[in-house]
Amino acid sequence: MANILVTGGAGFIGSHVADALLHDGHHVWVLDDLSGGFKQNVPADAKFVKGSILDQALLKRLFTKVEFEYVFHLAAYAAEGLSHFIKRFNYENNLIGSINLINLSVLHKVKGFVFTSSIAVYGKNQLPMREDMKPEPEDSYGIAKLTVEEELKVTKAMFGLPYIIFRPHNVYGERQNIGDKYRNVVGIFMNQLMQNQPMTIFGDGDQKRAFSYIGDVAPVIARSIQNPKAWNQIFNVGADVPFTVNFLAEEVAHAFGREPEIEHLDARNEVYEAYSDHLKAREILGAEARVTLTEGLKHMALWAKTHGARKSKKFKNIEVPIHLPPSWRS
Amino acid sequence: MANILVTGGAGFIGSHVADALLHDGHHVWVLDDLSGGFKQNVPADAKFVKGSILDQALLKRLFTKVEFEYVFHLAAYAAEGLSHFIKRFNYENNLIGSINLINLSVLHKVKGFVFTSSIAVYGKNQLPMREDMKPEPEDSYGIAKLTVEEELKVTKAMFGLPYIIFRPHNVYGERQNIGDKYRNVVGIFMNQLMQNQPMTIFGDGDQKRAFSYIGDVAPVIARSIQNPKAWNQIFNVGADVPFTVNFLAEEVAHAFGREPEIEHLDARNEVYEAYSDHLKAREILGAEARVTLTEGLKHMALWAKTHGARKSKKFKNIEVPIHLPPSWRS
Repeated sequence: MANILVTGGAGFIGSHVADALLHDGHHVWVLDDLSGGFKQNVPADAKFVKGSILDQALLKRLFTKVEFEYVFHLAAYAAEGLSHFIKRFNYENNLIGSINLINLSVLHKVKGFVFTSSIAVYGKNQLPMREDMKPEPEDSYGIAKLTVEEELKVTKAMFGLPYIIFRPHNVYGERQNIGDKYRNVVGIFMNQLMQNQPMTIFGDGDQKRAFSYIGDVAPVIARSIQNPKAWNQIFNVGADVPFTVNFLAEEVAHAFGREPEIEHLDARNEVYEAYSDHLKAREILGAEARVTLTEGLKHMALWAKTHGARKSKKFKNIEVPIHLPPSWRS
Repeated sequence: MANILVTGGAGFIGSHVADALLHDGHHVWVLDDLSGGFKQNVPADAKFVKGSILDQALLKRLFTKVEFEYVFHLAAYAAEGLSHFIKRFNYENNLIGSINLINLSVLHKVKGFVFTSSIAVYGKNQLPMREDMKPEPEDSYGIAKLTVEEELKVTKAMFGLPYIIFRPHNVYGERQNIGDKYRNVVGIFMNQLMQNQPMTIFGDGDQKRAFSYIGDVAPVIARSIQNPKAWNQIFNVGADVPFTVNFLAEEVAHAFGREPEIEHLDARNEVYEAYSDHLKAREILGAEARVTLTEGLKHMALWAKTHGARKSKKFKNIEVPIHLPPSWRS
């Protein structure tokens, strides 16, 4: 029964992690600036604080008021492809915000810091990606995540703050922000389908990803703190089987009882094939990806239909508009 | 005859790089906020702009006014040991500032970006350190430098901005800020000697570094842009022979015609032995460390005596004062 802070807890993965922590009997505070998340995602039993991880004064007040035993840091702007064009925004949000939390966790003697990194740290690497490989990130988002990982290691060495790092990949499911046109292909497809628009695919659609259902990911993250062997370790977490984006489009359409209509856009600079090895998470955390893509999409489609399409917001502060995919300009 | 921006050009290495560029006939603009550098270090023939790499509006005006062909980015707060305690300051200055310059270099189609990283990216690694090793930085300063290196690689891939990265180590010589008590052991020793204080050493003093004379480093950095084989490469640069800090203290004392008086402080968390392999810089850039430690210290001592001792300023905004060496508290 610990006091736990979940940053990004009004977001997709964060709200599910908060759910699992509450289910286990913990006291949960959610911090979220609602830039990508939604108030209605915050579990009813969690205390909600609206604010940014960049607001140092707010963070200071919060850590002084509540004696947090664990921090689950999930707040991030997780857009790999867009991060090239918003480098400063990426590092402010994904790195400086994390540093604020790490500093306060040290100062307030937090027992452990759980961080969701990303498969993006691997970049173009051998497949399947394993935790002990040399990271070679291919975008600013992946670099920012890697930088926080490195920070947690040196902070452990200098100040003794224990950490657990997760590298999830292509997570989808209920409560995903389907209105964000810059990230999360499953949500983008569903939003397009519900608006009777063609599903758009960058390039030939043969790029492969192992799409991971949220129910196979969030509880693994939440429960890791109970496992003494998990501390100061890095874990891949998610589904094992990679599928092409073309196949995904078909499956998403079928989950809505439709036939896929696809529009191929120019290829963008992205890793062609990415999937991970999960032996470590299986052996140490007992993690298993149990939900098949067909099942998971069915769950999400049901939720999306109740929820309806969401209007896409344009990202306003593009820093370098050179080589920006045309579909992201409009 | 190119237009060249040198950030940190009122600082130690930066001012020597600016000198070498002017000597080669280039037009040099120096940008420096004088937080660690001094106006009198700026070469007379360079145009000086006082300001910070964090001032986006100023940078924008500068890049609009002058069509820079090359950017030499040397502005940094280079204090490895202190960086644990000033993580946010470290990343703001050493990473976000670099991102501002990288963004503008892409937008203004700069021909090449030369970055001084650090041996700190290697951390505890096999010796001698080679450019192709997996970096394992041990402090926030080293992580920030590594992050900028990674940024330059993805920026090259996405936007085509060519880069050259240098990893110098333990550079000393004329114009070093000997008043900074948090960094640069040679300067600290000289400043203590001139104030008739004992030279302070963290731990037993058997830690080894290859102290590199500025005259063997700055011209190599400045001239790299003329070498087609240097682009998109990383180079160690500096002296080959490591010496203990105890031996250094003796040599510094002798350079002042004195006998060393040493005070050993508690050891701090630092890499015990660090020196680099320079085969790559020798083969591609023709770099050689020609100046011996005794000679280099003699040059620097002569300069320091003319210049006099400098009062040490206390770093005001320590973020996490836990485990801070006592000598840094007062």
